[in-house]
Amino acid sequence: MRVAIVAIGDEILAGLTADTNTGIIAEKLRAVGAEAVSLHGAPDDEAAIALAFERALEDAEVAVSTGGLGPTADDLTTAAVARLTGVPLALHEPSLRAIEERFRDLGRPMSENNRKQAMLPEGSEEIANPTGTAPGFRCGVQRRGRQCWIVSLPGVPSEMLRMLDESVLPWLAERGDGVRFASRVFSTFGLTESALDESLAGLIPPGEGRLAFRAAFPRIQARVTVSGPTDSDLDARLDALEREARRRLADNLYAIGDMGMEEVVGSLLTERQLTLGVAESCTGGLIGHRLTEVAGSSSYLRLGVVAYANESKRALLGVQEATLAQHGAVSIQVAEQMAEGVRLLAGADLGIATTGIAGPGGGTEDKPVGTVCIGLAWSDGVWSRRYQLGARSRGWVKGMTAQLALDRLRRWLIREDDRHQT
Amino acid sequence: MRVAIVAIGDEILAGLTADTNTGIIAEKLRAVGAEAVSLHGAPDDEAAIALAFERALEDAEVAVSTGGLGPTADDLTTAAVARLTGVPLALHEPSLRAIEERFRDLGRPMSENNRKQAMLPEGSEEIANPTGTAPGFRCGVQRRGRQCWIVSLPGVPSEMLRMLDESVLPWLAERGDGVRFASRVFSTFGLTESALDESLAGLIPPGEGRLAFRAAFPRIQARVTVSGPTDSDLDARLDALEREARRRLADNLYAIGDMGMEEVVGSLLTERQLTLGVAESCTGGLIGHRLTEVAGSSSYLRLGVVAYANESKRALLGVQEATLAQHGAVSIQVAEQMAEGVRLLAGADLGIATTGIAGPGGGTEDKPVGTVCIGLAWSDGVWSRRYQLGARSRGWVKGMTAQLALDRLRRWLIREDDRHQT
Repeated sequence: MRVAIVAIGDEILAGLTADTNTGIIAEKLRAVGAEAVSLHGAPDDEAAIALAFERALEDAEVAVSTGGLGPTADDLTTAAVARLTGVPLALHEPSLRAIEERFRDLGRPMSENNRKQAMLPEGSEEIANPTGTAPGFRCGVQRRGRQCWIVSLPGVPSEMLRMLDESVLPWLAERGDGVRFASRVFSTFGLTESALDESLAGLIPPGEGRLAFRAAFPRIQARVTVSGPTDSDLDARLDALEREARRRLADNLYAIGDMGMEEVVGSLLTERQLTLGVAESCTGGLIGHRLTEVAGSSSYLRLGVVAYANESKRALLGVQEATLAQHGAVSIQVAEQMAEGVRLLAGADLGIATTGIAGPGGGTEDKPVGTVCIGLAWSDGVWSRRYQLGARSRGWVKGMTAQLALDRLRRWLIREDDRHQT
Repeated sequence: MRVAIVAIGDEILAGLTADTNTGIIAEKLRAVGAEAVSLHGAPDDEAAIALAFERALEDAEVAVSTGGLGPTADDLTTAAVARLTGVPLALHEPSLRAIEERFRDLGRPMSENNRKQAMLPEGSEEIANPTGTAPGFRCGVQRRGRQCWIVSLPGVPSEMLRMLDESVLPWLAERGDGVRFASRVFSTFGLTESALDESLAGLIPPGEGRLAFRAAFPRIQARVTVSGPTDSDLDARLDALEREARRRLADNLYAIGDMGMEEVVGSLLTERQLTLGVAESCTGGLIGHRLTEVAGSSSYLRLGVVAYANESKRALLGVQEATLAQHGAVSIQVAEQMAEGVRLLAGADLGIATTGIAGPGGGTEDKPVGTVCIGLAWSDGVWSRRYQLGARSRGWVKGMTAQLALDRLRRWLIREDDRHQT
């Protein structure tokens, strides 16, 4: 079943809040075999809202709207739908009683304009709102000889979500053609978007599903979507696709689902009961910040040191004066000594370190902005590498360096081989 | 001038990411006297994209699109626009050279499908993309006897934003009706949104401008917008509004413009030639990360320590065993010792420290999740405070704690008084 989404309200076009409702609805529709095919955003203007619904019903049999059901003069969804369907607004008694009750429960007087929220297009079915005053509604409308439907929900995400789950999705599932959709996300790091595209070329035979890509810096994700008559069949097909994707992407596939590298590293450290110390120069705390976004990280993250100044690198991490003088602070030699230094200082199993030139200043001919070195130390070895990331923004260099360091930890943790490779 | 926005890509309708581009574009359009009148979201499907543009041009003279300009097979914006305007795609040589150069700079081979990004609808003007491979374009099209325009930008927010600012807005401003808009943003911290609303009530006399609020966690911003025939008149009116806003908001107004607290703190430290050490427990590196987002921060940030474990607090920062035992790690006493400890370890003028329970685990009856303590130490004094932030998400507690610590530094730096207040 095809569904078009209508997002109503000046705020959609005002830059004040990002519209999160649309994505949530689209995602939930898949589970009941429906598909969001288009989005129509309209300001608080009756004609514009009516036009958005009209277009939505050109694209799909069901138009689901959010917003414009409040009590104020600029809430115009019911009026627009009444205009579109050619019926008057009528007082819906049960809704009025529910609104009155809600105000009684809150111990607040109901203002006269809340009465407006119980005026629904004549002949429509109310969709109860258990957590707010604005009821939603569903009404049928004929378009091009087909029975179509308008489903209107409030814009407050928590109210919308509950009404979607409790009323709209069951209704849609019942009316569906029995086709189910399911999808799986592959989170990758180490391949460009085009290389990922090439690696996964032909993964899904034509007509058997869809493959989409998304660059969510610093990771790149691929999503496969398949459809069919039963959930178990879909799961089996997704499992097969996942096996093949794993084979093709190898270690560049770091997680199934929308997961950060810090979560994967955290799980691996927990699993192997290893602890970590982090020494950051150019990343300035970002690695520690990312690792500590994960609940329970205190069990493996022993210590982080942001050693921006050379003195800190020497005094605290034991980087040698001679190494700094000979190779400079941004060198694989210093990265190695920082990694080993923080490992010892933290009393941890592993030490990871970054040093580099995030820019915009500080670059030289030998070491332009974007030159970064990463070091990793463990009980009987050390690894390091120098990268030229290019002179993009300071934030980009920091973000990419932190991701490379976390990815290095991950690869070390999953592959014995890496421990002795460069 | 009326502008319709076209948001392209499966992700718009997939729930993977909230579309933030639309709001940003709509907001920026106001500044050049243009207005976003509708939004059209289409998946990665050529016919659906073409239909979205067609509808956009029914609503407005200019359709601005984001997304679908990447190198992969599911990037179909240029093909859809070529179909709509009835012209073939043609290789745009300067764009191809720019893409080749970009890959050369990165030291990576260009894959064959990146060539596709230089294929633009014949006769269109390229919009240069200084920070990515996908060029944008602008092309004219006649609709209902009017000259209309399609402007296509990539979907990556940072790339889109720069191209919007540097190419699209100046072009729109030139084509406008001569009315100029200007706005100024007041970034605040310390007041709730409703308190800010009350503080600024009546700031702008009716009909003379607009006042809008935006909660951009962890700061809250107010934006005043005025319009008129000349820029110099607008500047003078904004200056007067700013003077009055400063008077009303006092120290809660921390910056004019969309600036982070870390930039303000950095400027104050530079100005006063003071250096800083940071000891983070519950913020896990976020303060260091934020401070080092600012170019030149190496001149005042001497050292950061992420002391998650009690051992690190003791061994490295000199927090006393007895204090930990008596008051617990989350206490103003420990926060003070951490601040003084990192100040001495860093050899810095100031030390700032955080310790708290970010959750979801770790809370007790006495110290529920969201209990955080902040300490600040200087050569002859120390300050600390305990906050109950509530058990929201881990990320929220970290973010708010980092902001409170940076704000404390700011207030200390601007107000002698604060040094001896609690």
